[in-house]
Amino acid sequence: MTGLAHENPEIMARAAALHARAVVFDGLSTCNWSRTIFSEMATGGVTAVNAASVLWEDLRGGLDNILAWRRMLEENADLLRPVKTVADIHAAKAEGRTGISIGWQNTSPIEDRLQDIGLFKDLGVGIMQLTYNTQNYSGAGYLELNDSGLTGFGREVVHEMNRAGVLCDLSHVGEKTAFDTIETSHQPVCISHVLPRALHDVARNKTDALMAACAARGGLIGISLFSPGLARGNDSTVEDYLDAMAHVIALVGEDHVGLGCDFSLDHPRPGPYQVYASRDKGHARELTEYANAKISKPLGIRRIHEMPHITAAMVRRGWSEETILKLLGGNWLRLLERVWGG
Amino acid sequence: MTGLAHENPEIMARAAALHARAVVFDGLSTCNWSRTIFSEMATGGVTAVNAASVLWEDLRGGLDNILAWRRMLEENADLLRPVKTVADIHAAKAEGRTGISIGWQNTSPIEDRLQDIGLFKDLGVGIMQLTYNTQNYSGAGYLELNDSGLTGFGREVVHEMNRAGVLCDLSHVGEKTAFDTIETSHQPVCISHVLPRALHDVARNKTDALMAACAARGGLIGISLFSPGLARGNDSTVEDYLDAMAHVIALVGEDHVGLGCDFSLDHPRPGPYQVYASRDKGHARELTEYANAKISKPLGIRRIHEMPHITAAMVRRGWSEETILKLLGGNWLRLLERVWGG
Repeated sequence: MTGLAHENPEIMARAAALHARAVVFDGLSTCNWSRTIFSEMATGGVTAVNAASVLWEDLRGGLDNILAWRRMLEENADLLRPVKTVADIHAAKAEGRTGISIGWQNTSPIEDRLQDIGLFKDLGVGIMQLTYNTQNYSGAGYLELNDSGLTGFGREVVHEMNRAGVLCDLSHVGEKTAFDTIETSHQPVCISHVLPRALHDVARNKTDALMAACAARGGLIGISLFSPGLARGNDSTVEDYLDAMAHVIALVGEDHVGLGCDFSLDHPRPGPYQVYASRDKGHARELTEYANAKISKPLGIRRIHEMPHITAAMVRRGWSEETILKLLGGNWLRLLERVWGG
Repeated sequence: MTGLAHENPEIMARAAALHARAVVFDGLSTCNWSRTIFSEMATGGVTAVNAASVLWEDLRGGLDNILAWRRMLEENADLLRPVKTVADIHAAKAEGRTGISIGWQNTSPIEDRLQDIGLFKDLGVGIMQLTYNTQNYSGAGYLELNDSGLTGFGREVVHEMNRAGVLCDLSHVGEKTAFDTIETSHQPVCISHVLPRALHDVARNKTDALMAACAARGGLIGISLFSPGLARGNDSTVEDYLDAMAHVIALVGEDHVGLGCDFSLDHPRPGPYQVYASRDKGHARELTEYANAKISKPLGIRRIHEMPHITAAMVRRGWSEETILKLLGGNWLRLLERVWGG
């Protein structure tokens, strides 16, 4: 017994009922997608997810990612449905399937052609992270040597996302580029999967100032389960996760916080996906040590089927049902409705 | 006075009323698109058109063609609307706008990736010609040295078109490849813009046997205004056009014939588009002399605003209203409904 909320049967019963009723939206996932994962999402009560495996891909790679999803959606149609609108998310809930919104962690697939944003939007890409870790045509990632802010091309990219109805994500984006983007965008943006630097000072985490600026323009902060961003690292539990969430709620209010679990399950570790993720452009110098590190998700929420444990921990903290429903997905839906359109 | 039908006021009045009522579908057009052309389509009573300017383009070129159409559709939204379904064609008629169905005259934009057919279908490409003039991965064009028929990859391409709901077009396809495709396809195919070789023996025209085979499987023959395919060449009139149409109707029946005007107006002549069209892959040896030839459309139907003259000539021949409505667009709509789905 570790004393976690879901070990209390009464709390778990209340949480399970609430979780079953909730629209649960996970702001980012990069799993090694398989029927195992899709089944877990069903068990975990995930209504819809921003499935964002694209990291450094070019145009062809971006199209291939969509083709891969089409195949998976077709082969697992009993468990999955495509999501292009908020209505699709509600339909997923009604059908008991998990909605897949295709996302990118980099705008690399548009290469130098910003009009392609609209084409990819039509093919199902609803959320695009502006940069991934380093510099691209639009701006800097959080690991770039220097961040000169949003580029001229980047300004056009952000406005084209606004026009096409694509939600802009700033999770791996450099601080200055992120501030510039928040100011430039005509629509709210998100930081889909992040933890607060105030609780653990690592580069990947975001400052309170940035998260506050994002929320002040109507944006959303998705709280990540990425242990290296939590103060207790691999020793963290779901309570540490909620502590991080509570910090951000205190900072920006409960209307601007959601889930951004950052599950990257079932990739061989060490293995090619981690190496690709950790190197600049996928193949250049190593930028992070995550490829070879042993990283555990917080105890109680190590895999997707444990998602109801987050709800249990919220219930035990005495958070209201209304608050919990917002945090599990309501806030995401409101933002997506605004950016994607009705 | 040349004695053409539309010079008779009484016939023209009856024809104009019928034309205004008809859904007019042009099976292929490759104009130098402009507001002038779009206005002419409105004047000419064109309900919708297969706008097929792609000849040798690769993936990037195929995407660029869609981007160009998006821009033109947006800038000319008072005259045009996109067409992805037969319902869109009926909507175009109701709105008094011309529907644009994007088409290809070559499967070159899918390069070696047949799954891209589905992506392009979703982006608005509803009709794809399998080959253009020479060999590609799928088969031979009508100007290839030898036609070895539909390739193994080509079989997959045709089946993927069937699955994705793309109409396969055989106009510039080699004879053996075309026969193979008709036999292989699970859906009817079309020869969107063609003239009968029985009336004028040139390579670009099709044999009665091929057109009959196409129609026997439920397909459609779109009759072209391309003068080099008419026996009297540049001296042809709209009556010669109807003679060609009458020949094909006698061969395959009035349910399998439609318009496929092949207008390529307002390209500078000689100019880059004709050179691109006439050379293999756009830049290799010259395959036809059309780039430098003076080609006039038949008298009475030289530009799109004269489309009602076709209807007038049909009326003067005593063809029934029911027949004329089929030929102007009804047959195309029935085929598109079947291949595109409801």
